[in-house]
Amino acid sequence: MFIGIDIGGTSIKSGLLNSYGDIILKKEIPINNSDKYELIESQIIKIIKILLDESKKVGENVKSIGIGIPGIADKDSDKVIYCTNLGWRNVPLGINIKKHFKIPVHIDNDATVAAIAENVKGVTKNYDNSIFITLGTGVGGGIIINNKVYSGSHNKGSEIGHIIVGKNFYDCNCGNNGCLETFASATALIKYAKKLIDEGESTILTKESLNAKVIFDAAKNEDILANMAVDRMVKYLSIGIGNLINLLDPDIIALGGGVSKAGDYLLEKIENNVSKFLVFNEGKTTDITIAKLSNDAGIIGAGMLQEYL
Amino acid sequence: MFIGIDIGGTSIKSGLLNSYGDIILKKEIPINNSDKYELIESQIIKIIKILLDESKKVGENVKSIGIGIPGIADKDSDKVIYCTNLGWRNVPLGINIKKHFKIPVHIDNDATVAAIAENVKGVTKNYDNSIFITLGTGVGGGIIINNKVYSGSHNKGSEIGHIIVGKNFYDCNCGNNGCLETFASATALIKYAKKLIDEGESTILTKESLNAKVIFDAAKNEDILANMAVDRMVKYLSIGIGNLINLLDPDIIALGGGVSKAGDYLLEKIENNVSKFLVFNEGKTTDITIAKLSNDAGIIGAGMLQEYL
Repeated sequence: MFIGIDIGGTSIKSGLLNSYGDIILKKEIPINNSDKYELIESQIIKIIKILLDESKKVGENVKSIGIGIPGIADKDSDKVIYCTNLGWRNVPLGINIKKHFKIPVHIDNDATVAAIAENVKGVTKNYDNSIFITLGTGVGGGIIINNKVYSGSHNKGSEIGHIIVGKNFYDCNCGNNGCLETFASATALIKYAKKLIDEGESTILTKESLNAKVIFDAAKNEDILANMAVDRMVKYLSIGIGNLINLLDPDIIALGGGVSKAGDYLLEKIENNVSKFLVFNEGKTTDITIAKLSNDAGIIGAGMLQEYL
Repeated sequence: MFIGIDIGGTSIKSGLLNSYGDIILKKEIPINNSDKYELIESQIIKIIKILLDESKKVGENVKSIGIGIPGIADKDSDKVIYCTNLGWRNVPLGINIKKHFKIPVHIDNDATVAAIAENVKGVTKNYDNSIFITLGTGVGGGIIINNKVYSGSHNKGSEIGHIIVGKNFYDCNCGNNGCLETFASATALIKYAKKLIDEGESTILTKESLNAKVIFDAAKNEDILANMAVDRMVKYLSIGIGNLINLLDPDIIALGGGVSKAGDYLLEKIENNVSKFLVFNEGKTTDITIAKLSNDAGIIGAGMLQEYL
């Protein structure tokens, strides 16, 4: 069996998984993102104890503990380098859990974990090479090559949100200009819609009401401003996806995160645009699709981390 | 032993290699890029026969024949899909050679072959993950991941020259605007220098004399126009390299091709620029370097293709 833990801003979700990635048992503990690191660590240890006890009851061994975090971990030192919305920097999460339980512990970014989950039970299942892109507050990504997670030689790769795809009217949090994240995240979509409202573009939308869903709904109803915002997002997201295909030519690219809830409406626009950017359009090429898993993806992907190393 | 064949526009270079990639024997036959495909194929077969005879003389078996082409091959059908400057489209090169010799035949792009050569005997030796970028008439690339060539699920990947990195004043041959190739190739450098001359920018250069070397030499001598051209090239090449590092985080990136002869002068400028574009600058990151091998790279890389599958 495997233990999968998904650390979010409001709760720790966890589960006991069998070798197929099925969740046998789920546990959730609420946390506050203002809680101190030590408190959250003790909560994680508590939840692991409960799950280990449950595994013993059914007479099964736990092979590994996997943890997905909204941040970056260092695989060599077992530390979390940072986790912005929890205020963590260089915390010894992996080290301390290993000490407690003497079981292999693997920590990885939540987008990578979601990529694994889709590969185990979702839309990228049975494909050797896949890329998962999460379109949420930011843009993140996970890359699977030859059925293994690929994060680069120094675990600094798969930063799909920070591929530079053009020039933008505002800078990215990372300090650069033109990152995919500043065109294709929900934040970016809202920022551009606000800019258009300020410029007096025709719309039924008000600044206060803006979110990705509202903008997509208005676009479907032929709101001029909303369509401009969606078209711009689609254009740059398609350049980004085109770059990924021209470079890595995976079997499939899956789109997840809040913005992907626009579903087929978004997907159709992207497919039409991406094809323009491909060097090789003849014959079989990369499929693009909407991710399938939602709430449990973090637990499943984290639990299966060891199988993807 | 292995046979490596490098098909260029003016000659077929070939060699008999030992398992370390050392060239034991070399043969070269001149060709004309206006020659018919059938003629060039018969020349290739002739050269393979000679090398096989030589291998028999020393009592060694040839394990595979590898061929590097300035174009794209389909690994499944053993056809060359196209090879622009030889005028080939869907030619049965691999099929016919296999028929003749009953030895495994592998055909790949010359940039991929050069990436292998650098990994066998050049600057990326002993690294698991490396990217080779050739800066010549165009921009090409080869990606090695976990000591194997990575060309994607449909052999359409590693098209580094067609990553879109900005907006340019002219379109790429592929039909898109903003491809890395239109900023960072020798052709692009010359085109931009010509544009600046037309605009009356201060320089000692004349339109007729322009090539990459002349422009770099003038830049070193503080020619204003030449420096503008080099700086622009470096900027966009650095965005491209930054994208590759943020995405794939390899151990090392090697720069080859005519433009890379600008050596340390170019490398220093690139290193200074690339660091600005990296999401993670702390700790160990990707090395950038100038490729080492020149003339024999095509033979060595082609010969070693089978070891990188």
